[in-house]
Amino acid sequence: MLKSLSIALIHYPVVDRNGAVITSSVTNLDLHDIARSARTFGVKRYFVVHPSDDEQALNRRIIRHWQSEFALGVHPTRKPAVSLISLEKDFDSVLATIESEEGKPLVVATSARKHPTKSILESEIKTKREEQPVLILFGTGYGLHESWLDRIDAFLPPISGADDYNHLSVRSAVAIYLDRLIH
Amino acid sequence: MLKSLSIALIHYPVVDRNGAVITSSVTNLDLHDIARSARTFGVKRYFVVHPSDDEQALNRRIIRHWQSEFALGVHPTRKPAVSLISLEKDFDSVLATIESEEGKPLVVATSARKHPTKSILESEIKTKREEQPVLILFGTGYGLHESWLDRIDAFLPPISGADDYNHLSVRSAVAIYLDRLIH
Repeated sequence: MLKSLSIALIHYPVVDRNGAVITSSVTNLDLHDIARSARTFGVKRYFVVHPSDDEQALNRRIIRHWQSEFALGVHPTRKPAVSLISLEKDFDSVLATIESEEGKPLVVATSARKHPTKSILESEIKTKREEQPVLILFGTGYGLHESWLDRIDAFLPPISGADDYNHLSVRSAVAIYLDRLIH
Repeated sequence: MLKSLSIALIHYPVVDRNGAVITSSVTNLDLHDIARSARTFGVKRYFVVHPSDDEQALNRRIIRHWQSEFALGVHPTRKPAVSLISLEKDFDSVLATIESEEGKPLVVATSARKHPTKSILESEIKTKREEQPVLILFGTGYGLHESWLDRIDAFLPPISGADDYNHLSVRSAVAIYLDRLIH
């Protein structure tokens, strides 16, 4: 019996294109596109991590909309997806939620280059899940700030394409990594 | 030397959740999320197929925006992606464009079930590209209308997940299929 796979979309601290620390906004599509990928590939929880109360209140409204009777009539496939979303103010709350149910998770991030010492392959994640739950972090904006480094146990390889252009949306990157992790 | 891989996002005729024929709208994110996936995985052209002149005029404005000096300063990675987009009014124009350069393409679609006679695996696409260009169709809304059947040479298998829930966004589905086709 494998332990769970969860994902977290991180909005702070992330960097902009100049490397400056920013708090990014949540977009409606980041909520339900990624939730639909999570539901398709058997992810246990999709944590949306943002420090702002106002932003989280808006996210809660959007999620409640997709769970309403009205929305169920129009888009019946969205409720089971957005029901996986947990809104969290910081990373400690994410860890506490997972730890209280299944113990300490292996925290995995994706990286632009192969990491010299902490790299892990998609195929190794399943073996790890025999022992502990796995949490994959995805940074918005131009990626996670370096202050995350101490909290990350391992890095998945970057998604390489036809040449050195690699600027997938976070929605596309999540879909591809989950497909690779499950198959 | 392989012949090209192209993709087409089809907005008519597609079906809604009740199976009725509709023309769907283009969304801004369908343009640039999918264009970024196309650029990453070496797709030659990303055809956005929509019959409405007004809709295509709006698409043209959005694409020109991402190609402008101003947008290049803010999001420098989007121009090389959206530059792959060809706006076409109908499928015959898509075919004519490909045929004029590389000959008749193999027209491939994705399907909810394994097709009894016309199925093709991701791994077979590369072999096919030794002989002819390949064009992958993606339907918006709830998928391509059955009138497309005569125009499709082969079907890729559906993306299966953890159970029978399979309601990925078209943006996520394109990203996953391209990752599978290139690797």
